[in-house]
Amino acid sequence: MKSQYPLSEQGYIQQLSIDCVIFGYQDKKLKVLVPKLNFKGEFFALPSGFVYQDEDIDDAARRILRDRTGIQDVYLEQFNVTGKANRSSKVFLDRLIEQNPELIAANVQKLNETVSGIGDYDWFTRRFISIGYYALVDINQVTAQKTDLDESIQWYDLDNLPSMIMDHNQIIGDALETFKLTLDQKANAFHLLEETFTMKDVQELYETIFEKQYARNNFQKKILEMNALERMEKKFTGAANKAPYLYRLPKRE
Amino acid sequence: MKSQYPLSEQGYIQQLSIDCVIFGYQDKKLKVLVPKLNFKGEFFALPSGFVYQDEDIDDAARRILRDRTGIQDVYLEQFNVTGKANRSSKVFLDRLIEQNPELIAANVQKLNETVSGIGDYDWFTRRFISIGYYALVDINQVTAQKTDLDESIQWYDLDNLPSMIMDHNQIIGDALETFKLTLDQKANAFHLLEETFTMKDVQELYETIFEKQYARNNFQKKILEMNALERMEKKFTGAANKAPYLYRLPKRE
Repeated sequence: MKSQYPLSEQGYIQQLSIDCVIFGYQDKKLKVLVPKLNFKGEFFALPSGFVYQDEDIDDAARRILRDRTGIQDVYLEQFNVTGKANRSSKVFLDRLIEQNPELIAANVQKLNETVSGIGDYDWFTRRFISIGYYALVDINQVTAQKTDLDESIQWYDLDNLPSMIMDHNQIIGDALETFKLTLDQKANAFHLLEETFTMKDVQELYETIFEKQYARNNFQKKILEMNALERMEKKFTGAANKAPYLYRLPKRE
Repeated sequence: MKSQYPLSEQGYIQQLSIDCVIFGYQDKKLKVLVPKLNFKGEFFALPSGFVYQDEDIDDAARRILRDRTGIQDVYLEQFNVTGKANRSSKVFLDRLIEQNPELIAANVQKLNETVSGIGDYDWFTRRFISIGYYALVDINQVTAQKTDLDESIQWYDLDNLPSMIMDHNQIIGDALETFKLTLDQKANAFHLLEETFTMKDVQELYETIFEKQYARNNFQKKILEMNALERMEKKFTGAANKAPYLYRLPKRE
């Protein structure tokens, strides 16, 4: 909204957006990284953006994540498309303009006078089809960076999220549902852990995600049968033989 | 392509399409319902279409299925979005026009003269983001109907599909992958069977889908633990107590 060019002239595909849900894990809590928009009023919104005409949708998701959060090269999965006919950012945008009336003078009216006759307001308030992506990150590796669109960006507990614009809370719920549904087959939850971890760390993570307890032996068997982890050699220091095994995800090529 | 109005004036969202993969099952084979387009040349294409501005994307998928196949009220799941930057129907459309040169005189040139200056060719050959849906149907309940877009429509074995336009063979592969990945949690494979079925029918279906054998007792236990099926009372005819139990999906409200 703050670019000098109207959105309609920036080479994006119309009526298509990407929303990113970034999951982290700390202190036995699942968390989501949520920016607060840099406008008066309390506007929390998922890191979102549009797709350039010459850009793969997966690349657009990676670009949006990187630009809005400083996060590079993360585990990313497409999970859902939201496309109800009545989906609109009009309510959000009208409330934003109401609380930031200077935008009208500075931006919206001017844009409505562009040659195309379509300013950001019209472009932005049409129905958008939104492709959802979720990311799984090691929270310790992330130094969240905000852009000038953001007043702040921080981790919120999944069970204590702020009230977000449009259907963004619902989108987070959908992301969680898909993550849980395919977690075993994709063996991807480990991306939420530090580089090396114990089987106890994995069990605590699963117990957090699924909100239930697992029996230790059965759980370990189930995880090892996935063949998704690499067990590291124990270092032979004095107490090493009492230390639990450490695991990690195999290095990518 | 045969409508009297150019696509650009029919109220569709631009650069967004829906592709439907319809799975059936018969004689221990998974099958896909594939229309052949009503043009000279051999053009096989998934039932596809566009989304009206005032239409939910799920409703668009149901409409496309119904219009192109006569199939109503089926089990439908969104599975994937295809959106590579270089995705285009230009190769397909150029080959189609080459083999059907009368289209240029009759249609394409005329459309290029419309007020908007954008005929179907330009509209149609831009990059499309395609939302994939798969349907699971009882093959015995389907009387496939073709529209004037189709020369024919028929079931093909999944392992013996015709070569299809664009990336449609790949889309079928993606649909199958998602179906298999979430089958246990969604307990949805039963939609491929007749209204009532035996546990043996279910086992044969799973063995077909996953291309492996299951031990009978373990398999039955696994299926019953899903709590997805309703076991029907045996009718007390003479041989009834030797007949296997019949199961069905619970009636929807």
